[in-house]
Amino acid sequence: MLAVNGKERAVPGCRWLNRRNKMVQSEKAVIAMIREMSGAGSEQVLTGIGDDCAVIGRDGGVVELITTDTLVENVHFDLSWHGPALLGRKAAAVNISDVAAMGGKPLYCLLSLALPVGLADSWAEQFIGGFLARLNEHGGCLIGGDTVKSEKGVVISVTVIGEAAASEVLLRSTARAGDLVVVSGSLGEAAAGLELCRRGEQEMDGSWQQLLMAHLDPSPETELARVLAASGLVSAMMDISDGLATDLAHLCAESGLAAEVEGDAVPVSAMLLEAAASLSVEPLTWALSGGEDYRLLLTVAAADAAELQRLVQKQTGRELFQVGRLQEGNGVVLIDGDGQRDITYQGYDHFSCP
Amino acid sequence: MLAVNGKERAVPGCRWLNRRNKMVQSEKAVIAMIREMSGAGSEQVLTGIGDDCAVIGRDGGVVELITTDTLVENVHFDLSWHGPALLGRKAAAVNISDVAAMGGKPLYCLLSLALPVGLADSWAEQFIGGFLARLNEHGGCLIGGDTVKSEKGVVISVTVIGEAAASEVLLRSTARAGDLVVVSGSLGEAAAGLELCRRGEQEMDGSWQQLLMAHLDPSPETELARVLAASGLVSAMMDISDGLATDLAHLCAESGLAAEVEGDAVPVSAMLLEAAASLSVEPLTWALSGGEDYRLLLTVAAADAAELQRLVQKQTGRELFQVGRLQEGNGVVLIDGDGQRDITYQGYDHFSCP
Repeated sequence: MLAVNGKERAVPGCRWLNRRNKMVQSEKAVIAMIREMSGAGSEQVLTGIGDDCAVIGRDGGVVELITTDTLVENVHFDLSWHGPALLGRKAAAVNISDVAAMGGKPLYCLLSLALPVGLADSWAEQFIGGFLARLNEHGGCLIGGDTVKSEKGVVISVTVIGEAAASEVLLRSTARAGDLVVVSGSLGEAAAGLELCRRGEQEMDGSWQQLLMAHLDPSPETELARVLAASGLVSAMMDISDGLATDLAHLCAESGLAAEVEGDAVPVSAMLLEAAASLSVEPLTWALSGGEDYRLLLTVAAADAAELQRLVQKQTGRELFQVGRLQEGNGVVLIDGDGQRDITYQGYDHFSCP
Repeated sequence: MLAVNGKERAVPGCRWLNRRNKMVQSEKAVIAMIREMSGAGSEQVLTGIGDDCAVIGRDGGVVELITTDTLVENVHFDLSWHGPALLGRKAAAVNISDVAAMGGKPLYCLLSLALPVGLADSWAEQFIGGFLARLNEHGGCLIGGDTVKSEKGVVISVTVIGEAAASEVLLRSTARAGDLVVVSGSLGEAAAGLELCRRGEQEMDGSWQQLLMAHLDPSPETELARVLAASGLVSAMMDISDGLATDLAHLCAESGLAAEVEGDAVPVSAMLLEAAASLSVEPLTWALSGGEDYRLLLTVAAADAAELQRLVQKQTGRELFQVGRLQEGNGVVLIDGDGQRDITYQGYDHFSCP
């Protein structure tokens, strides 16, 4: 969706980062412009631009959730390490994740493919096979799309339409001051996997498999999200597609609040720490700014947190991780051993260029 | 939608045509593959891949119509003559046309923009202004989308969701042998306008304005389509986006029938004839193979044709044009002074390369 899916990936390196920052600025300007120009829309449109999905009111206490994402070759993926079947799975997953993050289940999907002349037919077949497998696994079906020639590279646009009970839809804009900030699992693995791919480590002995697959084949948290939505205890939710620093800033902006994140509380896996040491990267950089983890970011009143954790543990066996707290104000501040620093939208400041 | 939107434009010239034919072949293969692999879908999906829109059953005798289209710079449009506001209008129009062609009205829209770094902010502003103006004019509202960086050129993906009475939806697959083939207005003007743009004639004294605007700013036939759908007399309908030869072939394939088109009956405007003479182009080439006219292509039982014409004339002041007839078999044949020739998907054979 417009307000959130700047799919430029944060990876170390100033050249990349200059481009990234430029695009993020420009993207935010375009989104603000569209939001201002497009007006309020129809009264059926309960939530428009600015959340994971648009929310359309339907009869019978049901809402329709609609999201779209575009993935561009050499901007969002690199075919030299991303095989067609896994890329197909990922193109479906990132849109399914948007629907899941609002408490919904995916139903229908449209797929537009712009393909360069000369791409092998077997590429498209494997892409579509992967796409349909991931989609069907989460209950969605493909109902249409478009295939066109691209001037350069593969461009993939996906629209997913899902459904949720109106009483259970979780927005970004409904968090409250004092709520705890919670994530659904360890962060940064997709960014680490991307970095391993960039360095050509995918041929290794399989020891980084978990990190590589976090980048190549992310799993939408459909089941956990349904439990969270049905609990009635979550005040706001979204998926982490652009990194905790940026996505929490979006949640704060939509809710009119500020957030503090405790660096030590951000969950990272043992394998991530190992890869970070091996590649001489600061693990928190990946965890805060990496993006593409597709974990859930949610907020819950402090008084409800223990009950929510018990419920989730019982129904899914999963653990939730408190990483910070919301308060009046705006912006996102990171607190760690070095003190406090503003990470609003910018990601971790290791990325800033001299 | 997948089966119909091969947006490669037919223009004279063998080099272009070789590329065009290659893509059309490849596109058809990809669509067939998707259609086969994606299976039947849910029982709510009344019509999936293969029509202008997917049709989803809703309560209360209503269906949802969903369509998506991707437009690629230098494949579907050329920024050297297509200004941003008119391009925005066109990106909305071609999707609105798909919904109109099934008898529906557009309600909600998602817009994904992949923009190259360095494109002026004012370009995006004008594009979105034009897009919203055309969308709102037909009753639709923008509810979301995505903005990303492209590697090269502008790529526009639009999804429109519309609605129709279930009893009035017009498909491609329901034509009957013996039905007349009818179009809603003169054809080929968009192709002529494109050719004028290619030859740099847009600066002329305004005498070709109608042709230029047919290419730059096509009008979806929303009002006429509603009258046709409500009449109960139309057996099948679609919009003409890829040219009469190709789109009629799609309608025939979906209905399991063949068609004969009478060359002399294809409506062309006086201005088109003038431009064709001036540029030494065969006017029927533009009219049959040009595409992008976004007129309606419909079929009607011979016994109902006069009544339909009267109804349309009375309610809209418009005229319908009978251009051919359906029969058992498959493929599309053109009959003119030179005899008969097969024009199935291929367009008029002036395009064939030696």
